[in-house]
Amino acid sequence: MIGSVYIENLSGVRYSVSYLISGDEGTALSKSRDICYEQTVEFPEDLTPDGDIKEHIVGRIEDFAKAGEKTYRAVISFAVETTGNDLVQLLNVVFGNISIKPGIKVERLLLPEELLSVFNGPRFGIDGLRKRLKVFDRPLICTALKPMGLSPAQLADQAYAFASGGIDMIKDDHGLADQKFCPFEERVKRCAEAVKKANEETGKSCMYIPNITGPAHRVMERSLKVKELGAGALLACPLLIGIDTVRLLADSDDIGLPIMVHPSFSGSFVISSMSGISHFVLYGQIMRLAGADATVFPNYGGRFSFSREECSEIASGCSIDMGHIAAIFPSPGGGMTEDRMKDIFQVYGKEFIVLIGGGLHRRGEDLAESSRYFARMMESM
Amino acid sequence: MIGSVYIENLSGVRYSVSYLISGDEGTALSKSRDICYEQTVEFPEDLTPDGDIKEHIVGRIEDFAKAGEKTYRAVISFAVETTGNDLVQLLNVVFGNISIKPGIKVERLLLPEELLSVFNGPRFGIDGLRKRLKVFDRPLICTALKPMGLSPAQLADQAYAFASGGIDMIKDDHGLADQKFCPFEERVKRCAEAVKKANEETGKSCMYIPNITGPAHRVMERSLKVKELGAGALLACPLLIGIDTVRLLADSDDIGLPIMVHPSFSGSFVISSMSGISHFVLYGQIMRLAGADATVFPNYGGRFSFSREECSEIASGCSIDMGHIAAIFPSPGGGMTEDRMKDIFQVYGKEFIVLIGGGLHRRGEDLAESSRYFARMMESM
Repeated sequence: MIGSVYIENLSGVRYSVSYLISGDEGTALSKSRDICYEQTVEFPEDLTPDGDIKEHIVGRIEDFAKAGEKTYRAVISFAVETTGNDLVQLLNVVFGNISIKPGIKVERLLLPEELLSVFNGPRFGIDGLRKRLKVFDRPLICTALKPMGLSPAQLADQAYAFASGGIDMIKDDHGLADQKFCPFEERVKRCAEAVKKANEETGKSCMYIPNITGPAHRVMERSLKVKELGAGALLACPLLIGIDTVRLLADSDDIGLPIMVHPSFSGSFVISSMSGISHFVLYGQIMRLAGADATVFPNYGGRFSFSREECSEIASGCSIDMGHIAAIFPSPGGGMTEDRMKDIFQVYGKEFIVLIGGGLHRRGEDLAESSRYFARMMESM
Repeated sequence: MIGSVYIENLSGVRYSVSYLISGDEGTALSKSRDICYEQTVEFPEDLTPDGDIKEHIVGRIEDFAKAGEKTYRAVISFAVETTGNDLVQLLNVVFGNISIKPGIKVERLLLPEELLSVFNGPRFGIDGLRKRLKVFDRPLICTALKPMGLSPAQLADQAYAFASGGIDMIKDDHGLADQKFCPFEERVKRCAEAVKKANEETGKSCMYIPNITGPAHRVMERSLKVKELGAGALLACPLLIGIDTVRLLADSDDIGLPIMVHPSFSGSFVISSMSGISHFVLYGQIMRLAGADATVFPNYGGRFSFSREECSEIASGCSIDMGHIAAIFPSPGGGMTEDRMKDIFQVYGKEFIVLIGGGLHRRGEDLAESSRYFARMMESM
């Protein structure tokens, strides 16, 4: 047994996490107590030293109440010092080991300004991205270059057509990496040039968003190359490259580009209603802390299974007050047909990015004309 | 519609993924077809260009059979070129978007040497790690410095006691980051010195394993510092820093240290039997591709919920033939009581690392004596 421990200069400031916990009241309360220890000292309660470790380092149940049938909500607070002012370590405390324990879902992060102040958050956010695109009064329209297997020249033709037709943002499909049939640098160069040419003709500010997701030693290099070649933003898959790697890209003054994040490899966190991380936190709050400016996710009613309510939650997570951390664009993809638009506007308001993929291609071979059609539709809403 | 597409220099070599898919036969078959498209061209089948894209880039169902009640096994192959010889993009194809679709579980990776050859895998593996530790004939014994809240000096005292008592490997608790009450560099320096001193006294080769998990721009810096300060290996949480970041550390000749990976933040991938990634693939195959030498996970019968069978699967994933990719140590933690040891040996054989945490502390204040007790127990098995 270690004796009583005193820790110098603890601020007393705490952040909180709201967890949904499955089970009857006794089980849920016991799981809540377990979270307090598992996520900090990772030590049995009776062996944990008295003094500042038990008083401050161990998590503290601030609130515990029934949230539904066999579900309880526990709000647990932790000392801000546990995070070391580091997003990775914050996530480690919030959900590291307990990700392996069934029936615990992170519902919401409640972060004081003392902790938020260590993060810059999005460099652009909704306002900054609108300024870049010079579109202020309607949702933004984004599409993707696809399918995998086309050459850089073929994708550049697509990009030119989309940009000519009035699409605001053109992203790489997230499956476009650095394959030999479509090398990263050649693709970015050609597509950036194609979009630039179209912009000169239309007078618009369409943004090309290459996918910089890749090997750990290439992510920064590719992002700088994107900047050098004149593309307008970065597409990144945080669960593949590391959530904090996105933060690093967002913080880099050498890059200084907007970042759109893609949910590839993230689904396991949200697929269970009883375990994992809520849509609100994962696609909203965490992506804002990581400095994303737009967060892609599958829209309700499309080929994925997110519900209308879950999508609405993501939109809330993108805009809920987080001190100086800017609001960002929810970017739902799929299911964007004309007859569903009214309902989609009800869920997202006007502050969202419409992601149209196959729908644009389905209208026929003239992609510029199909783009114009969707742009008109969006302007008329 | 894009016309027929020809892609130069496709090798024809394919890798396969075995998926477990929930549903009746029709649903499962339809989901399998969907995987072929969703994970590659992300395009509706009828819009996908003929020629090499449909023939080679789109996934191909190689086998489809009933695997259990309302579960089917689909083996789907992809062109090696889709990966761009990149672990991140391999994971993207294997489970990127479909992570968001319920009822799909990655069961096993079947990788041809053409693809394996682009990865170095573990620098040490089981044989290399045993050579470093000079222990050849029994499982290795590892414990953790804890709890969070202790100072570097207090943790160094622990490390000295453990090393003096015959523990083979001493890792930082994964919650030790760079908190101001326990700064990274001071901790690593003091603990490395303490273990070195003990080794000089015992003549053994106990290894100290600092946790380098941290902000994206600090991971490499901390790993080099670990090397410089004479600690023996790295502890990393791949799901927090990015799986490929581990590969980068393993590949670095400047570091050249063994890597132990920790499952923090990974649980959502394995918590459902119907969605996610199997224990075999996530903690075994993927960690080997990433170059880990030892993979930590919660043992069955401890305070987590992995079953005996799931733990056994991890052990298989650590050692199954993967060409030149070395076998690595499964490192189960928890539940290591004397009366369970016989069964634990049955599951893991002798090639595993026993992770003992609270159990060592529970035996009393003399940690060196408790360490000797466990070391004797392990030697007598």
